[in-house]
Amino acid sequence: MDPYAIGVDLGGTNLRIAAYAGGKGFLEVIELPTRLAEGRDRVVRDLCGAVKKLEKRYSGLYEMTGVGVGAPGPLELPDGIVRNPPNLPGWDGFRLREAVETGLGRTIELENDANMAALAEQKLGAGYSHGVESLCVLTLGTGVGNGLVIRGAIESGMSGMGGEAGHIVVNSAVDAPTCGCGGAGCLEQYASATAVMRLAKERMGELAPSSARALAGLARTGDPAAAGVFQAVGRSLAIALAGLINTLNLPLYLVGGGVSEAWDLFAPMMFSELRRLSYIYRLTEPADLYSSRFERHKTYIQRAELGSTAGLLGACVSAMGERKGVLVEMTVVAE
Amino acid sequence: MDPYAIGVDLGGTNLRIAAYAGGKGFLEVIELPTRLAEGRDRVVRDLCGAVKKLEKRYSGLYEMTGVGVGAPGPLELPDGIVRNPPNLPGWDGFRLREAVETGLGRTIELENDANMAALAEQKLGAGYSHGVESLCVLTLGTGVGNGLVIRGAIESGMSGMGGEAGHIVVNSAVDAPTCGCGGAGCLEQYASATAVMRLAKERMGELAPSSARALAGLARTGDPAAAGVFQAVGRSLAIALAGLINTLNLPLYLVGGGVSEAWDLFAPMMFSELRRLSYIYRLTEPADLYSSRFERHKTYIQRAELGSTAGLLGACVSAMGERKGVLVEMTVVAE
Repeated sequence: MDPYAIGVDLGGTNLRIAAYAGGKGFLEVIELPTRLAEGRDRVVRDLCGAVKKLEKRYSGLYEMTGVGVGAPGPLELPDGIVRNPPNLPGWDGFRLREAVETGLGRTIELENDANMAALAEQKLGAGYSHGVESLCVLTLGTGVGNGLVIRGAIESGMSGMGGEAGHIVVNSAVDAPTCGCGGAGCLEQYASATAVMRLAKERMGELAPSSARALAGLARTGDPAAAGVFQAVGRSLAIALAGLINTLNLPLYLVGGGVSEAWDLFAPMMFSELRRLSYIYRLTEPADLYSSRFERHKTYIQRAELGSTAGLLGACVSAMGERKGVLVEMTVVAE
Repeated sequence: MDPYAIGVDLGGTNLRIAAYAGGKGFLEVIELPTRLAEGRDRVVRDLCGAVKKLEKRYSGLYEMTGVGVGAPGPLELPDGIVRNPPNLPGWDGFRLREAVETGLGRTIELENDANMAALAEQKLGAGYSHGVESLCVLTLGTGVGNGLVIRGAIESGMSGMGGEAGHIVVNSAVDAPTCGCGGAGCLEQYASATAVMRLAKERMGELAPSSARALAGLARTGDPAAAGVFQAVGRSLAIALAGLINTLNLPLYLVGGGVSEAWDLFAPMMFSELRRLSYIYRLTEPADLYSSRFERHKTYIQRAELGSTAGLLGACVSAMGERKGVLVEMTVVAE
């Protein structure tokens, strides 16, 4: 029988559970609301129930390799204890791994959801397209997510709490905007969708449109205030990326999430500031920034290839077997 | 026969070559001037001559495991090509590995000198003392050096150019001081010995003492301007460390180099700013910052244990055998 895995993307709003077979893509995706109001045991019961349902349906047809779960951070690993999660209020200290493993009667692969998304990009997305085993993903959504994959495996540090590059300081001024993390001047305050709207209001007052997409449209018509917001996004990304490139020297950095749709508006500033701020980038800048054929020892910064299912895909892939090496017979899934 | 290795620390001023035996420490250290004015071939000849001299002397008594060479960066690996090195003028594009391997008639272990120093800290210094396999070292000298060791091996990125955390942007203002790297507002402009002297001049004018050590002495007598310089050092370290901790979640960060002698002056500000800027640090701060007994999953920031021979020690250790795991029978060398 061909192998398949079950992946779970546990979000603050939605709970998605999928059966996935290499070479076939998703066999089935179950989407449920995350019933936080009914308590964490209820959410875990919903999760385990859906996994068992998929298992019952597919384990006669395929051979199950495992179950992967991506959850919002911070998540202390390997124990799988949830720590002050902004998106799972009331879950602080919850022993998520224990609860799910008890519910399922089997061990699981558990990781921060942003790291699961990065794993998917490496195994099935841009990393796969380019044959790259190490990459860093910045996801510009409501917040700024981050995942790191090195030599084909998620690198989440001593206790699973790495991958928070969204909280790199990009504005060191004393009056820098405070961040939900308790710090100030974080990348998240300049490059998330929330930040883009705040910057628009600061610069345009009541003339600021009500969505990041509308703001991008306005910037494309030549509105200087709207364009300035995306230049601030580009500059903040450059400061954070310069630090990452200088420290890690990875071949590929991906920018995803809703704000990345304004790539044309922020990328020119991002690249020009990056050239100024990182001499490692200057030494390794590729001749063709967007090439699909990678030159050896060059630093590429491109848009993420997988969309909002990256986390779910990564959870599936994490349970497909050997995580330290490159997975074989894995094919890109069309969304 | 017991094993021994030969290590080389190729600096812009001095060239040091040592024979090193695990359990015995340095058998012999040769120190020569780096005769840059006489050309790079001359420097490579001096280097190879000293290695051969040591080899002749010790290979009858011990069994040689290899030769390790630490060189100033940026160094493109694995080819070992020197790239625009600020400390080796005229060496841009020099194929250092090829030159040394040809001169010696054997392969070598080649790495950036700051990474070699970090390897030594992990195998023989603070990492050894605490039983930690991953760490990050910031060396506050003329510039700010940086090395990263993850799971017992140097992590220098796709082409050996990682470990340049000294060029993380810690001042994002448009008027931030420019840096030798071509950027502006880098950690090196706030935490190196050079930066400390510049900051003292900015704040104290002609009253600024002529050495960092004298400045520290003045700060300890309560001089507010002198103390302010070290608070700036502490704040800049906190911004850089917050980014590293949030991204990498390592158990240990070490601060070494001459400026680290003023630890008592900059550490209070460093820790208080770090608590503010990194929620991963807040979640993982140990009860006892300076404990020699590490608690699991806590983030420690301490002074580096090895002094100016760290790079030379690391070069020796890199050639002692298996680099992906922990070396056995390695003992700490008294300086």
